[in-house]
This record gives sequence, C-alpha cells and structure tokens, in this order.
Amino acid sequence: MTLTAARPKINETFRITPPALDIPERLLLGPGPSNSNPDVVAAMNRQPIGHLDPAYLDLMDEVQAMMRYVWQTENQMTLPISGTGSAAMEATLANTVEPGDVVLVGINGYFGNRLVDMAGRYRADVRSINKPWGQVFSLGELRAALEEHRPAILALVHAETSTGARQPLEGVGDLCREFDCLLLVDTVTSLGGIPIFLDEWKVDMAYSCSQKGLSCPPGSSPFTMSERALQKLDQRQTKVANWYLDISLLRNYWGKDRTYHHTAPVNMTYAIREALRLVTEEGLENSWERHQTTAEKLWEGLADLGLNCHVDKEYRLPTLTTVQVPEGVDAKAVTSKLLNDHNIEIGNGLGELGGKVWRIGLMGYNSRPENVDNVLVALGKVMAEL
Amino acid sequence: MTLTAARPKINETFRITPPALDIPERLLLGPGPSNSNPDVVAAMNRQPIGHLDPAYLDLMDEVQAMMRYVWQTENQMTLPISGTGSAAMEATLANTVEPGDVVLVGINGYFGNRLVDMAGRYRADVRSINKPWGQVFSLGELRAALEEHRPAILALVHAETSTGARQPLEGVGDLCREFDCLLLVDTVTSLGGIPIFLDEWKVDMAYSCSQKGLSCPPGSSPFTMSERALQKLDQRQTKVANWYLDISLLRNYWGKDRTYHHTAPVNMTYAIREALRLVTEEGLENSWERHQTTAEKLWEGLADLGLNCHVDKEYRLPTLTTVQVPEGVDAKAVTSKLLNDHNIEIGNGLGELGGKVWRIGLMGYNSRPENVDNVLVALGKVMAEL
Repeated sequence: MTLTAARPKINETFRITPPALDIPERLLLGPGPSNSNPDVVAAMNRQPIGHLDPAYLDLMDEVQAMMRYVWQTENQMTLPISGTGSAAMEATLANTVEPGDVVLVGINGYFGNRLVDMAGRYRADVRSINKPWGQVFSLGELRAALEEHRPAILALVHAETSTGARQPLEGVGDLCREFDCLLLVDTVTSLGGIPIFLDEWKVDMAYSCSQKGLSCPPGSSPFTMSERALQKLDQRQTKVANWYLDISLLRNYWGKDRTYHHTAPVNMTYAIREALRLVTEEGLENSWERHQTTAEKLWEGLADLGLNCHVDKEYRLPTLTTVQVPEGVDAKAVTSKLLNDHNIEIGNGLGELGGKVWRIGLMGYNSRPENVDNVLVALGKVMAEL
Repeated sequence: MTLTAARPKINETFRITPPALDIPERLLLGPGPSNSNPDVVAAMNRQPIGHLDPAYLDLMDEVQAMMRYVWQTENQMTLPISGTGSAAMEATLANTVEPGDVVLVGINGYFGNRLVDMAGRYRADVRSINKPWGQVFSLGELRAALEEHRPAILALVHAETSTGARQPLEGVGDLCREFDCLLLVDTVTSLGGIPIFLDEWKVDMAYSCSQKGLSCPPGSSPFTMSERALQKLDQRQTKVANWYLDISLLRNYWGKDRTYHHTAPVNMTYAIREALRLVTEEGLENSWERHQTTAEKLWEGLADLGLNCHVDKEYRLPTLTTVQVPEGVDAKAVTSKLLNDHNIEIGNGLGELGGKVWRIGLMGYNSRPENVDNVLVALGKVMAEL
C-alpha cells in the first residue's frame, strides 16, 4: 500500500515559510506580561518528560509547596492551572458555583466585571457592589452588602490590574465567616509583589498568574482552595460544568492517586518551578520590600515630570501604577511611541479608564531601579516630542 | 510607612529551597508528550512580549496560516487554544452545544468517553454508538446511528490514543450534511502524522495538541471551526458556558479587532510557531511518509520479538501502536523497567486495555528509525530479564 493511493491533493495555499523566529527586545512595563527572569525562560529550553514520570511528579510537589509559601496558605489544594490567569480565575468559580447560588462581586475595575461575566456562565445569581474605578471597599460597605445579598460567595479583586488599587482584606474573611459565605480573591497583580496572607485573612479561594510578580512567562496559573471551599465542591448536586478545570478530577492527579486527567503543560511547569524557586530564594519579605521601594522611586519620578497618580497613596499598588494622562495628550500616541522608539511597553487604560491613564507595571524581575530610570527618561522624551 | 507595620509574621514552613532543575533525559515513545524538536524548545528560551505587541500579532497570523496548512482547511477560525489538548477538545463542545442538543459520540476508546463526559457538562442530550476498543465505525453503522438519533453534532475520534486505531473519515462529512448535523473530530494523535483533509472530508470542528505530531511541548492546542459551526455559535440563545474558551470573544482577539480577551501563553506561541514552521518546511507529504515508514519498521521488529499488534493493519495508526502484552507478563513491570533502566517511556494500556497492551508512540521528531531500534532492543532486554 502506498500512502498516496486515492488521496486528495494537498492544498499548498497555506504552506507559507516564515523566517526564523525574531522577537524584538522589549522592556515590558505594562500590566503584564512582565519580562521573565532569564533563568526562568532558560528552564523551558529542555525536553519535556511525561506527566506521569516520577521525576515530573516530584516537580509537582515542589511547585505546590512553594506556591503555598508565596500565598502563605496551608491549603492542600494549591496547584497551577494549565492555562493563563483567566483560566485559574474561571476554575475558582466553576468549581464552587452551582446554579442559583448568589455570588456577590465587588466591581471597582475591569476584572470585577470579568468575574460577573464568568459567574453568570455558571448560572450564578450574580449581584454586585460598585465603586468608582481606583477606589476600594470599606469593611462597612462589605458588611452592608453581605447583609443585603446573603451570598454563597463574595468575590473581590485584591489588586485591580485596570486601576492600580489595592483592596485591603484584613477582616473581610471574618465577615464572610459571620455571613457563612466563601471569600474568593483575585491576586493576579499582587502575588509575589505585595503582602498576602491567605490563611490569616481567611481567604477560601484565590487565583493568580505567572507572568507578573513571579517573573515567568504566562501559561501556568496559581490556584488555591481552602477546606471550606472544598466542602462546597464535595456537596455539589451537579458535576462541575467545566471538565478541564474540574478540581474533583484534578485532585486525583495532584493527590496521592496520580490519576491521569489532562496532559500537563510540562515546560511551563519547569518555568514556574524555577520562578517560584527564585522567589523562595529571595524571600517574600525581601521581594515585597523591593517592589515597594522601586515603586516609590517611580512615583517620585512621575511627580518630577508633573504627572499624577490615579490612586491614593494608601491604596496604591507598587506592582502597577496608573498615571493620569495630562489634558490634551493622546494617550495611545505616547504608548505607541514608547514601544516603537524605545522598545518599552506600558499599558493603556482599560474600560472606564481608557484614554485617561497609562498603566506602568514594575513586577517581579522588572521591579528594579534601572527600569524606573529607563521608563521615566523615555516617557519624558516622548512627551516632549509630541 | 514601613512595610512591616502591623503585619502577620511570615510562615516559613513552605519555604523549601529545591535544587536547580534537573530533568532526566528520556526518550518519550509513549502516547505523548513526545520529545520536542530541539529547535522548538530553544524557541521558548526568549523573553515574552506583550500579547498586543504588533510583533506578537504577526506571530498569531503565521500560526493560524500554518495550522490551516497542516489540517488542510481554509477555516478562518483556526487558532491555538491556550491550554493542552483537552482544553481544545472542550472548546469544540463548549462553543457549539446548547442545552438539550443531541450529541452523538462514537465510543471505541478512552477519548470517546471523555467526549461524552464533556458534552454532558454542557447539558447536551448525549447518545453514543459503541465498538470494541481497537475497532472503527463503518459508514453504514454511522448512517444507522444518525437515522436513529438525529443529532446536532456527531463526534468521532480520528486517531484513538488509547487503542491505536484510525477511524476512516471519507464520506462521513457528506453523511452529516445529509442529516444536517455538524461533524466534530479528535485529531490529537493524527495531526502531522497521518493524512488529514479537513475541508475535503467536510469536518466542521477539530482539535489537536502540540506535543505529538508537531514535536512541541504541550500547552498550545490547535482548534478549528467551519463556517457551518460558526453559524451554530452565532445562533446560540445562551452565552457559551465557558468564558476562557468562548470563541465569540476569542474571535475578536484573533480577528481584525485584536480586542484583549485573555493573556496569551506567549512562549508557547513561540514554540508552536517554530513547530509548525518545521512541519511546513518538511511538507505534509514527507511527514506522513516518514511516520508510515518508521511505524512499519516498528511493526516488523515487534513481530520478530514475537509480539502482536492489537489493531488490524488496515486501521493501525503509524503514530501510536498498541502492542499485546504476552500472557503472564506484568505489563507495568516492563514499562517501569524501560523507564528506569533505559530512560525510555512507553505507555501502559488505558481503561479497557489496561494491562493488556503497551502503547508505543512514534510521533513528530521521534518518528525516526534509530528510535525504533532503541525501543526494540530495550524491550527485548527487559522482557528477557523478567
């Protein structure tokens, strides 16, 4: 038998032959991805091994342990989701929301809206409390909302990537216990960069990403669930409405049984393992201090350029700063010029803040004083040229 | 303000300091992942760039074009899903199944059952036709099942990774048009390795993975939808019940608008772009011939060892061979010894075929005669030692 017998002709239309990969060198100071630590991308330059190989299973254990450290949680169910941050976000809701559950979302930025959209797809009865973008919720406001809505889950964004505001979480977990609801927290732009104490704060579910405070490429995303959240999962009347993210199946792969669920993104695991190892080596305390110090240098420099920050200093994230675009300046023209002339990426405003702010990230490996100097000099030049 | 004011003490319990990454060198001849082309893993050793960077948008176009080539389809909606193969599998169902839709699944192996499980989570009315594992469906059987069930979607597995059988698809698309249903096909273990002509066969949805015929690490997974399938998506009464995989949102990022949806796994895109470039450079014809020739060498060698293949030669996949475990031999003892003593991974049987077969993959970069020699010599030794 020859292969060609009775076979259609191959359509060569799409047989393009692009050149070898040639990626411009960018300084990524936007909302993410940030630049990776060079050791982390080098860790990916290895052959994959099997996702059931004993050597891979060891890596899984190490990743879980270090993830518990950076989040400060003892949650057994702490693992990387095989996708980018939004997949981990969806995993928290998919596993705990049953049709009709009231989910209360604090909306003070773009990602609150995303939580609303996702929760609705799992047929939650979604309620929301709202604040202007850049502000945060007080304990009193949260208590009033819990009283009114009596949700099964309260979802808050610890670090709003669209606004640069930090939602304080002290006391929120106690409130949620009082109202017998689970506390779900977005830590995408906080993990590794600012203090997080998940257990101390009684957070029941959290998710994050790899490409910000962890200095890793995107594609392997921290996820965690407390015993209380697992109880809700165990008591479900219906299957989790998402197969890929179903923790009731994934726990058998990440637990003792090592039952195959889906093929892991093996080289991404190499990367996040190295990324977590570097954070663990530096120590959380040092990493948090570094982010704070670097950000304060940025804020001073922005003031020297006559630029104002959008968020009050008390709630301002060191990982991501929203800078008010001065009257009459074309925000996108500035970001384009920074990228094209200086190879520096900063972010444009999102949603309500579109055209009104720039977003400057100083996260993970990129949180260093020389990067502050680079972006300030370039920003000054670009604005002078406009 | 110092950072340490009124902050809980850091729990150092999980602050392990694992050694530098040390991955054993394995020859991956199981059901996947296979070894990557060294150029592909080297492509990952780069800094990420932004998922809205013009340079990244160019890569996206190239990946889409080359994916159309390897699948032989003109489908506009051809793109990589930001997860491993099962995520792309779920994307096909999530986007097209509405509650109550009849989905007919051909089950002749493990992955048919997975399709059933997934479709149920999207509240399909799931029906099935069954065949013993290792056999395939005839056109007559499919016609009878379509007559009986009148499904909205017929789902078949082109290359069953659990059995090593190839489901012929010639004529199935015409049948599906006749019965006004969509044809969904799993090409996880066929893409790049055996002839596929999606458009010629009138396939409406397909998915695959990166870590087999494409010689890439897992984590970026080919997905495609025809215009007919898109029409079903456009006519939905309800939102897609999965945010991360929602093509009605993703199409705005992969299309002209370039609207941010989720952060892409940027370095995985570098990898799959290089992997597709290498397949395109070799040419489909050459790649398919190479897989066939290499597999025939394996089959001859197995016969010389007195071992039988589980699947009839007519339907036997060159990418994945199921080998019958001889009476009295402990299947898992053999695979463990191969891994531990020879650094060669082959697969154990899955589901119904657990303990009854081994699975030997010769896919992508690994489909070379020297690998056949290696595995045959090692297998002969291990069996002699037991």
